[in-house]
Amino acid sequence: MEKSAIKNGIVVKESEAVLPVTYREMQYSFSVYEALRVLGGHIVHLDDHLKRLAFSCAAINLTHPFSDKMIKDSLESLIEADGIGDASVRILIVGGPDPKLFITYTELLSYPESYYSDGIDCTLYRGERFLPEAKTSNLLMQYIALEEAKRKGAFEALLVNRKGYVLEGTRSNFYGISGNRLYTAPDEMVLSGITRISVLKAAKTLGLTVEYMPPTDKNLHMFDSLFISSTSMGAMPVNRIDGIAMPRTAWPLIGEICKLERQWE
Amino acid sequence: MEKSAIKNGIVVKESEAVLPVTYREMQYSFSVYEALRVLGGHIVHLDDHLKRLAFSCAAINLTHPFSDKMIKDSLESLIEADGIGDASVRILIVGGPDPKLFITYTELLSYPESYYSDGIDCTLYRGERFLPEAKTSNLLMQYIALEEAKRKGAFEALLVNRKGYVLEGTRSNFYGISGNRLYTAPDEMVLSGITRISVLKAAKTLGLTVEYMPPTDKNLHMFDSLFISSTSMGAMPVNRIDGIAMPRTAWPLIGEICKLERQWE
Repeated sequence: MEKSAIKNGIVVKESEAVLPVTYREMQYSFSVYEALRVLGGHIVHLDDHLKRLAFSCAAINLTHPFSDKMIKDSLESLIEADGIGDASVRILIVGGPDPKLFITYTELLSYPESYYSDGIDCTLYRGERFLPEAKTSNLLMQYIALEEAKRKGAFEALLVNRKGYVLEGTRSNFYGISGNRLYTAPDEMVLSGITRISVLKAAKTLGLTVEYMPPTDKNLHMFDSLFISSTSMGAMPVNRIDGIAMPRTAWPLIGEICKLERQWE
Repeated sequence: MEKSAIKNGIVVKESEAVLPVTYREMQYSFSVYEALRVLGGHIVHLDDHLKRLAFSCAAINLTHPFSDKMIKDSLESLIEADGIGDASVRILIVGGPDPKLFITYTELLSYPESYYSDGIDCTLYRGERFLPEAKTSNLLMQYIALEEAKRKGAFEALLVNRKGYVLEGTRSNFYGISGNRLYTAPDEMVLSGITRISVLKAAKTLGLTVEYMPPTDKNLHMFDSLFISSTSMGAMPVNRIDGIAMPRTAWPLIGEICKLERQWE
């Protein structure tokens, strides 16, 4: 049976969730999105995601008629229509004279247990996002950086700005732990992840002080450990960067942060 | 009667020229395009456009099975199917595991005669393109810059890099004339327009020397005149930048460049 999707508040077949290639705002990537999780029919951190969606729209001056309540109701209609238990969900709003709302879903994204026990490998990619605080479809750099990482056998690419700050991954936030301090980029330099909020809260709960100062390409190996986080990943320790092994001293602590963060879903 | 379009080499109805919002490469703006003109059923500078399309694909590592001949044949099928005389045409190739080719068209884009006789107004926008030499769908910055220009009553936004170089417009190339010299950004810093090639050739034909040194935000008023060019615009003189009147001394020369460039179509 074909999956359903939402188009402008209406339940449609997934094959109808399409965009005309003649629509200028599609051609210009003038759109914003959110990636959420549904667990046991419950939408995780929905209000936070809707808040960030509104923030992304404001950041690029995208106006649309879709209220939070309408999006919420649409999501619930979709969950009911297809009897969704666990899933990864994507909300997309395309701007312009005829704004469009789409909600689609896939099987719940999850990763092998070994990614958490053995850590994941990352590459460094030099590049700066346009409007880093907004979650838009202007993702070509992230796509290219991630493809390069995959070709090198890595799981994620970390973006390094012109000053050498390692700010974030292509689809994750990035952190270093040193002693009882957690180092990460300040909010305005990165996409402020929903999971990042929980990770910082978890770190504080576990007695860490948060320093809004990102690691650099020069001091990565000086941290006790490094990790990344995202909605689908939780918190994952970094094993190697550009082939070089990173310290593992704080991996047990990263495990605790991950556990705590997942408890709040 | 509904217009036709090309999808993967086949003539379809324009309403079938759509992209699934679930297709990852659409979500990540992993696509390239070309904007061409058809005049009296003849495709203008087709080989140059196909060459640049291939260059854009190579720049972002986008592989696809659509040969130049296949694209050319498709375009001719479309022209025949709808009996197209004059039109603006868009070729779009989306990458990924299931690459897609679309060709769509609109009425020929053209501008009032007054844009050439009175010049057009521009604004300055501080921002740098990712992979400037490739014509990709990663266009959010250009969209935002142009919307801002329109709100201020201007026709185009010029992109200024961190060094103050005024490199190009959101959909045009940019030039300054001073004495018998034409100043413009070097090829590798901008999208090398098909019309730009003709403009530079026309300038040389008219006795100008081309200097690959872009104007800056500090010396704009020191040129005899400034102008922009694009496939749909030809060459258009700049009247004001951020509300400040620019010199008009070389406007007759810009008119000659435009005339010569159009003769080569």
